Amino acid sequence: MKKPDYAKLSLALHKKYQGKISVRSNIQVKNKHDLAIAYTPGVGAVSSYIHEHPKAVFTHTIKKHTVAVITDGSAVLGLGNIGPEAALPVMEGKALLFKEFADIDAFPICLATQDTEEIIRTIKYIAPVFGGINLEDISAPRCFEIEQRLIEDLSIPVFHDDQHGTAIVLLAALTNALKAVKKKKDISIVINGAGAAAQAVTNLLCLAGFDPKKMIVLDSKGIIYDSRNGLDTNKRDIAKRTNGDNRSGSLMDALRDADVCIGLSKGNVLTSEHIEVMSKDPIVFAMANPHPEISYDEAKKSKVAIFATGRSDYPNQINNVLVFPGLFRGVLDAGVKKITDDMKLRAAKAIASLVPESKIKQGVIIPDPFDKRVAKAVAKAVSKK
Amino acid sequence: MKKPDYAKLSLALHKKYQGKISVRSNIQVKNKHDLAIAYTPGVGAVSSYIHEHPKAVFTHTIKKHTVAVITDGSAVLGLGNIGPEAALPVMEGKALLFKEFADIDAFPICLATQDTEEIIRTIKYIAPVFGGINLEDISAPRCFEIEQRLIEDLSIPVFHDDQHGTAIVLLAALTNALKAVKKKKDISIVINGAGAAAQAVTNLLCLAGFDPKKMIVLDSKGIIYDSRNGLDTNKRDIAKRTNGDNRSGSLMDALRDADVCIGLSKGNVLTSEHIEVMSKDPIVFAMANPHPEISYDEAKKSKVAIFATGRSDYPNQINNVLVFPGLFRGVLDAGVKKITDDMKLRAAKAIASLVPESKIKQGVIIPDPFDKRVAKAVAKAVSKK
Repeated sequence: MKKPDYAKLSLALHKKYQGKISVRSNIQVKNKHDLAIAYTPGVGAVSSYIHEHPKAVFTHTIKKHTVAVITDGSAVLGLGNIGPEAALPVMEGKALLFKEFADIDAFPICLATQDTEEIIRTIKYIAPVFGGINLEDISAPRCFEIEQRLIEDLSIPVFHDDQHGTAIVLLAALTNALKAVKKKKDISIVINGAGAAAQAVTNLLCLAGFDPKKMIVLDSKGIIYDSRNGLDTNKRDIAKRTNGDNRSGSLMDALRDADVCIGLSKGNVLTSEHIEVMSKDPIVFAMANPHPEISYDEAKKSKVAIFATGRSDYPNQINNVLVFPGLFRGVLDAGVKKITDDMKLRAAKAIASLVPESKIKQGVIIPDPFDKRVAKAVAKAVSKK
Repeated sequence: MKKPDYAKLSLALHKKYQGKISVRSNIQVKNKHDLAIAYTPGVGAVSSYIHEHPKAVFTHTIKKHTVAVITDGSAVLGLGNIGPEAALPVMEGKALLFKEFADIDAFPICLATQDTEEIIRTIKYIAPVFGGINLEDISAPRCFEIEQRLIEDLSIPVFHDDQHGTAIVLLAALTNALKAVKKKKDISIVINGAGAAAQAVTNLLCLAGFDPKKMIVLDSKGIIYDSRNGLDTNKRDIAKRTNGDNRSGSLMDALRDADVCIGLSKGNVLTSEHIEVMSKDPIVFAMANPHPEISYDEAKKSKVAIFATGRSDYPNQINNVLVFPGLFRGVLDAGVKKITDDMKLRAAKAIASLVPESKIKQGVIIPDPFDKRVAKAVAKAVSKK
């Protein structure tokens, strides 16, 4: 069957609606009485009350259910540094998903600066309206410092979805994939890509109990190893923690006898020959979007046991939408100020546990994005004490 | 009849709804096909298209119909410097009115800084998402520089409503009030207050053809006159342009034989004795909110001919809601980059012209805020060439 022309359909949809979200009034203002309550003079009492009781901003305004989806347009999808205006449709899309999947009111903020300090300052200045900050499509390595500094300075949760959303959903998928092939955590994992997502995935897999010494991370120049020249701070850290055998070389070298390959690159770098050198029952997650590192059809020609992508039109879609709506729902409802590693691990476990054993045996490792249980389960998992 | 307890009702309403606005999805995302069009992979084509055709941000995103309502919480209603969180209910209210009166999607931004340069920079950084900027409740004199610099630097309309919204609606009211008492523009006008609104009113009345030499402006220390010590730049400018007789003294001194008194102070400064010293058929606009400079009942004991306030529970409510929804509707639809003085004068004329002569004779000088013709008339007036 011929696939729909999503590009054409999407352009038509965006033009028809002039964007995908709008602001709705929760209450009617049809006469002077309504106006006196919703606005002046009545609203003055609400402002005074919040001034005297600062916590009331969470009970008497939009703050508690409102999230900012913030980008600087520097790393938008696979399109790269296309700027804040061109990033807006993606941020609107994210806001749409927040609403549809978790009834959270998210608003897009696209920043006309890519300076780390200016971004941090701007987000701190606009924070009073929001109950949480979802950072999106900000390029590495700036994204690490921006997120870290905001987590330290703000008293609302800050979450860079490209890092942690991806890491959580991948951990969930890997958990079930290992069950499907009857392997344990002592496996070897190759992560192809060393951007924001790859670093977060590496971190979360370590926290989940996978052996960092049996992980190999690659950037565009090949395997990252301790004695390699020219590594930046973040890659140097990866080199120190992973690759216990201090291997060097290409993706093909890295994959020899590996159990898992996680593609977090710009796509089109894997062939069926790569998969052939992996161990028995290899697990391959080709996450590049919209073009996975290897196509579904090409992968299926190899000995791959479990294959997943980020795409909605193939089985096993590993999509962040399984994470961020429920995660924010949970932290907003619970009044959580910082998202901890433990919450991320619990979220991954909650997602994985929704796939029944019988399905896992058939190679289904991740819930459908439209499975309504997911957001609720994630929210519950992150908010429990 | 006992008035409703608006403070109590407003607190209850805000708590019930947790704020007055929410974000709505314009489109449904119920299955993978929907997701592929609204989000990835389809949305990538929209981002690429905007990257190649920058003007498409106005046709394919929320920008063209979305306005930021921005405050730093420094001069909120009559409550003063209560900060960004306490200002949020007022900004939400404004967003609500934008929606209800002109179907504009407005979003509140409350800034955690009161530094002029930081405010200007932050607003420039967040501007890409918005088609217009409505500044609100920012104290003088910072509001003048903030607005002026943003008008110069941004290519979307920037409008400080406390200044110009107030000036426009007052000019409309004054136009009809003069008709009602059969006076012309050669009248003497006293403006009690020298904040943001008072300065904008003075400017717009001059532009409308009233004689600045026959205007007297007062601050909390009394009449502003040329040789008075300690005037800041803005008040110095007022002193040079107004008060042709170089009068000094109190509000009572200023009002002697004046035709019009416009109160733009913090309230409770006028008595019926003040009105008695004014000329025949005096016009009094007591705009302080929620407590007018003189109450309706007290004013009616005097010889006042035309009396108006900002309150919804008395006749002749002079409210900015008659201006900002239609004004932004007009400039957004027309793609106007800067709001000109001529547009402001046309907006005032449009509002005034909606009150029929027969009503003006009865002392009705301003349309009802819920008169649906107003926003349309203002939009048409500002957008015409």
